[in-house]
Amino acid sequence: MKKYRLMSPGPTPVPEKVLLKMADTIIHHRTPQFQVVLKEVSEKLKKVFCTANPVFIFASSGTGAMEVSVVNLLSKGDKALVVRGGKFGERFGEICQAYGVEVVAYDIESGKAADPAMIKKLLKDNKGIKVVYSTLCETSTGVVNDIKGIAKEVAATDAVLVVDAVSGLSADELKTDEWGVDVVVSGSQKGLMLPPGLSFLSLSKKAEKLVETSNIPKYYFSLKAAIKAYAKNDTPWTPAVSLVIGLNGALDMMLQEGVDNIVARHARLAKATRAAVKALGLELFAVNPSNAVTAVKVPQGVDGGAIVKKMRDEQSITIAGGQSELKGKIFRVAHLGYMDEYDIIASIAALEMVLSQLGYKVELGKGVAKLEELLK
Amino acid sequence: MKKYRLMSPGPTPVPEKVLLKMADTIIHHRTPQFQVVLKEVSEKLKKVFCTANPVFIFASSGTGAMEVSVVNLLSKGDKALVVRGGKFGERFGEICQAYGVEVVAYDIESGKAADPAMIKKLLKDNKGIKVVYSTLCETSTGVVNDIKGIAKEVAATDAVLVVDAVSGLSADELKTDEWGVDVVVSGSQKGLMLPPGLSFLSLSKKAEKLVETSNIPKYYFSLKAAIKAYAKNDTPWTPAVSLVIGLNGALDMMLQEGVDNIVARHARLAKATRAAVKALGLELFAVNPSNAVTAVKVPQGVDGGAIVKKMRDEQSITIAGGQSELKGKIFRVAHLGYMDEYDIIASIAALEMVLSQLGYKVELGKGVAKLEELLK
Repeated sequence: MKKYRLMSPGPTPVPEKVLLKMADTIIHHRTPQFQVVLKEVSEKLKKVFCTANPVFIFASSGTGAMEVSVVNLLSKGDKALVVRGGKFGERFGEICQAYGVEVVAYDIESGKAADPAMIKKLLKDNKGIKVVYSTLCETSTGVVNDIKGIAKEVAATDAVLVVDAVSGLSADELKTDEWGVDVVVSGSQKGLMLPPGLSFLSLSKKAEKLVETSNIPKYYFSLKAAIKAYAKNDTPWTPAVSLVIGLNGALDMMLQEGVDNIVARHARLAKATRAAVKALGLELFAVNPSNAVTAVKVPQGVDGGAIVKKMRDEQSITIAGGQSELKGKIFRVAHLGYMDEYDIIASIAALEMVLSQLGYKVELGKGVAKLEELLK
Repeated sequence: MKKYRLMSPGPTPVPEKVLLKMADTIIHHRTPQFQVVLKEVSEKLKKVFCTANPVFIFASSGTGAMEVSVVNLLSKGDKALVVRGGKFGERFGEICQAYGVEVVAYDIESGKAADPAMIKKLLKDNKGIKVVYSTLCETSTGVVNDIKGIAKEVAATDAVLVVDAVSGLSADELKTDEWGVDVVVSGSQKGLMLPPGLSFLSLSKKAEKLVETSNIPKYYFSLKAAIKAYAKNDTPWTPAVSLVIGLNGALDMMLQEGVDNIVARHARLAKATRAAVKALGLELFAVNPSNAVTAVKVPQGVDGGAIVKKMRDEQSITIAGGQSELKGKIFRVAHLGYMDEYDIIASIAALEMVLSQLGYKVELGKGVAKLEELLK
């Protein structure tokens, strides 16, 4: 018997008490009872998103909310600046292109972060950019972008900043209102400790102005419909009731821990994880690593796919491999959401054994010792 | 103490064993373990949808799959024939219009069903109609449409038939392949006995040809992306893992009962419910009533809103009122999904007491007696 350990950057483990909350008798969504839940969730989400703006909930995966941020803020032929430092930055570009939005691409070498000065320059050189899209944590590379710096540059212009915080929310610092971030997009299956199926979007007044003029066709993902319903503690379409009820419980846990404390916990676990893999002689992939996930270069001579496979099939620990062109070149260990020190210790211990089996020269226990040193 | 009884046409009660299945440890979606689930679910869905065609799963509410059937089958400027006999037929029209599709509307008096002969005539009079949209059960009025008859007319043309079976699936007969229905759209929170959050779409070869030529912009709801992923037992975006796992269990229950038996159970409960409300001197709203929900005219002198409110607040039974222009004029009692005789008996018993309290002259127990007579 080996317990199933989910150490991927999404889905992440769901606390037992949240699972049980979702297993309660299903209630109808157009009732005073569910309105109370929506109202509570709405207020708690604002705290976790560090904003006084409304946070809309969609029944979709994170990509759905990314699409919301394109089809509701832009019009066909509009220009958007897209920070592309990996799969999720690229996805913003793909969505823009699918809807006839002109993409000014800021392509970053994989593993590196966006430079706010480049954003400033690109905004200056390309007149008329309406929206800037950037990831907070680019999950595919483990990089965290300097959103504070980027927001400063964007806020000085007429453009609106949309941040994909699907995996970064509550792991990496994101002071939405304080930094002047207009739109934050997220998903349920990461820092929010829920199963996948909900996505979120916070909307500033500056961004809301774009919603009024956007002419891209939409229906299910219409923010105008969401805004109208939100005012009545409602949703335009049937919400994913059980997930929203679970969310209410997960948010309680989060607010009890405190948003700053949660970020600090992620920072502590991330720092220890990085030190541990380095102690094993491994190299980090991200120059500017996120608190959500540690991307590690597969050492020379070792089969990257085999690391992930052996971890999963023999150790019952799900970590993530590299995606697209990073397949086989990196593996990714998350410290995201409902995870603590001993989850990390288990992951690193398993990693030591697996690497050793795969012929990589590793001093067993060295990574764990480093963890203990930093976590004691 | 009064137990919570959900007698609305969606969400419907979720069986305890399905709730507990969804409360199990969350697993990662890109694993052999989840691939097995997707493969199983995929085969079982075909049986429930009465089709050999693939049934795609989306993380969205039912409206999402309705949108899928518009943005993937049509191009801007195309013509669609939309049967509008209530709120959900109208929704198909709204989605078409949002995406620049020309709507040939077949407007039906509320409470009446579509006439296949009129579909034939409209298809003949309006050349170039690419898609015909109809509801199976129009949840807002409790009407079931003659999909067999409609399919016969549509199949004789180049047009493709899309049926909204969000609330009708497994309650009203729907022989998808046998009748020549091209696309069936459904949602999780009705006959499939799950919480809301999943939607479904089955796709015939004839309809798939339209997918290839459709030029309406889409991304999250792209069927091309879904088809590509489906071939690898995958989904384009993160699926709603826990709901899909619950679905697997719910489908097992359904296939154990048998699809025809499930339809027969719904027919039996629906027939008894109709007889019971008539025994109370009430009138049915739908001329051609569905097996999913019974719409009842609010009797003269009684406040329709008060019936629903008293049922909910005092009897702990959630039934549905009328929507839009039917508000206050009808109320709707569902017999849909995980419901049996005693759920119906409870509803009718409560209804008798509530109507009596509201000053409607009712012989207490008369409706229940009629139920017993028909259900014995």
